[in-house]
Amino acid sequence: MANTRPTFEAVFRNVIVPKIMEEVNTTGISKNACDWLQHSILHNTIGGKYNRGMTVPDTYRILKGVDALTEEEYKLSSILGWCTELLQAKFLVADDIMDSSITRRGHPCWYRVNGVGMIAINDSFLLGSAIFLVLKKFFRQESYYVDILELFNETSLQTELGQLLDLITAPEDKVDLNNFNFDKYYFIVRYKTAFYSFYLPVALALYQAGIATPKNLQQAKDVLIPLGEYFQVQDDYLDCYGDPEHIGKIGTDIQDNKCGWLVNKALELVTPEQRALLDANYGRKDAEAEKKVKQLYLELDVERHYKEYEAKAIKEIEALIDKVDESQGLKKAVLTGFLKKIAGRSK
Amino acid sequence: MANTRPTFEAVFRNVIVPKIMEEVNTTGISKNACDWLQHSILHNTIGGKYNRGMTVPDTYRILKGVDALTEEEYKLSSILGWCTELLQAKFLVADDIMDSSITRRGHPCWYRVNGVGMIAINDSFLLGSAIFLVLKKFFRQESYYVDILELFNETSLQTELGQLLDLITAPEDKVDLNNFNFDKYYFIVRYKTAFYSFYLPVALALYQAGIATPKNLQQAKDVLIPLGEYFQVQDDYLDCYGDPEHIGKIGTDIQDNKCGWLVNKALELVTPEQRALLDANYGRKDAEAEKKVKQLYLELDVERHYKEYEAKAIKEIEALIDKVDESQGLKKAVLTGFLKKIAGRSK
Repeated sequence: MANTRPTFEAVFRNVIVPKIMEEVNTTGISKNACDWLQHSILHNTIGGKYNRGMTVPDTYRILKGVDALTEEEYKLSSILGWCTELLQAKFLVADDIMDSSITRRGHPCWYRVNGVGMIAINDSFLLGSAIFLVLKKFFRQESYYVDILELFNETSLQTELGQLLDLITAPEDKVDLNNFNFDKYYFIVRYKTAFYSFYLPVALALYQAGIATPKNLQQAKDVLIPLGEYFQVQDDYLDCYGDPEHIGKIGTDIQDNKCGWLVNKALELVTPEQRALLDANYGRKDAEAEKKVKQLYLELDVERHYKEYEAKAIKEIEALIDKVDESQGLKKAVLTGFLKKIAGRSK
Repeated sequence: MANTRPTFEAVFRNVIVPKIMEEVNTTGISKNACDWLQHSILHNTIGGKYNRGMTVPDTYRILKGVDALTEEEYKLSSILGWCTELLQAKFLVADDIMDSSITRRGHPCWYRVNGVGMIAINDSFLLGSAIFLVLKKFFRQESYYVDILELFNETSLQTELGQLLDLITAPEDKVDLNNFNFDKYYFIVRYKTAFYSFYLPVALALYQAGIATPKNLQQAKDVLIPLGEYFQVQDDYLDCYGDPEHIGKIGTDIQDNKCGWLVNKALELVTPEQRALLDANYGRKDAEAEKKVKQLYLELDVERHYKEYEAKAIKEIEALIDKVDESQGLKKAVLTGFLKKIAGRSK
């Protein structure tokens, strides 16, 4: 089985969703509730890039050292991948409410769909519960079942802690740059994004391959968390300096008072006068103020600092990968593949 | 150890919360985030009646056939009890947002506390994650660890399905009594309330006592779900007919368009003219309309129907308890104790 978006999506539509609905149907819940749940599940999972989810079968294949997985191997691996997509869906449904977002993947955010509103909170709980239903149905007999239950619980907690710090550090309605610093920034990046987006899918593949030794898990984490950090710093850079046509969205981090890499770097570099300008213009819903911040970034040459950061980050991650001990079955190729996809991306 | 509100609460304050905070501190998250989390945990758990939570040590003691638990037994049993309280806290924080509630236990709902707002959604996730952190810290070495993980996952899903049906059956802003019927009513009661409030604490005590055989779990469920139904029907009755001074709140089910027992009974009894009156007045935020609904309940003698229901329900539950087979260690006394507390309560 080749791992493509259509084959990956087919596992969800043909295996996972029918299994969830079959289980929910056994409760005798009314048809309109079943329809609602299925609508919520499909709306909130289908249409993304599936980068996180597809990483599980990709990684599993590399770890097995084969060109292609059998249909059954691919199915099971993709199911684990879809559990990471369900976890993300749970968080995005809630984040969109907390951030008052309007659209997601070109469609209205779930809570803005006609008739949904705050019911979306319960729907996000249900997306989370679907993970455990799916794991029970397909993985209960596996020796690593309890380990992946714990992995999902731990990853959820980490993501929620990252989100908590993000929310209280950079509330949209109260700008105070004294709240920002690189310590908080990197905590938010690691906890809110890197654990679930980078470490979780690879750890799942290690479990499926039967080589999730403490050493392998630690080695994977030691590379993937810095990789996730680099990915998010890039994201922050592209939000300001990327081509909106190319990346498919217009950056709003400055207006949204985001605790991003660029503003933290600027805060390190500013004179008192420049700091006053930043205080007066950052986090305002105002294109003129945003322009002034971008002008300041230009004066401070923040872009050059980013390029220096990037070169250093790539070198450090390459060195980390180089150190990886493959004796317990982890393969450097898993990690270099990741880095190659990310390094120098422009969207 | 006697199981009293103060001793039960002390386990939370002195054992559970410090353990949660110790674990969260190891992440290196900033102090203001730690303080926020602790504030959220305490605000949303302390001050309830702890009926659900205290049921675990109570039941465990009866199952062990002792007059009092040792300190260590009481601690572990109370920790399981607090996990049910944390599960409830997770749901109440979210329910209060979804229902636009104002106060809870005499204090502002968490989302209405100054500076919280929609961050409460992430806080409710964290209350749920705290359960799994606590279980891992205190129960990982137990043979039933994976069983109680699954029990919490399944109970969450059940509660969310009940909440989903409740939310789409009785939206506050769109009254349509055609949506209501007793099938939906009993589904909502069973799934939204009975599983987590009645079955979960007893099932946890069965696991702790080492007698959670499939037969015992099924027997407990077969009595506790009907008992939970009866409890909720009572609740609906008291909302309308209870003494506000005595029950400590003013009933709002009629104005809130709740799919409650009384309106479902009324819908069975009405003439077409009475139905038109009900359609015109149920679920309106209007004291006059509420009065007309209560007058109609009087004409239909809904209260007598309730009393008939209650007498029958008690008899049926007594018969169910009578049938319980104690050969695998489940004791009827656990269930009769429950029924005695509930039958004929006036608050």
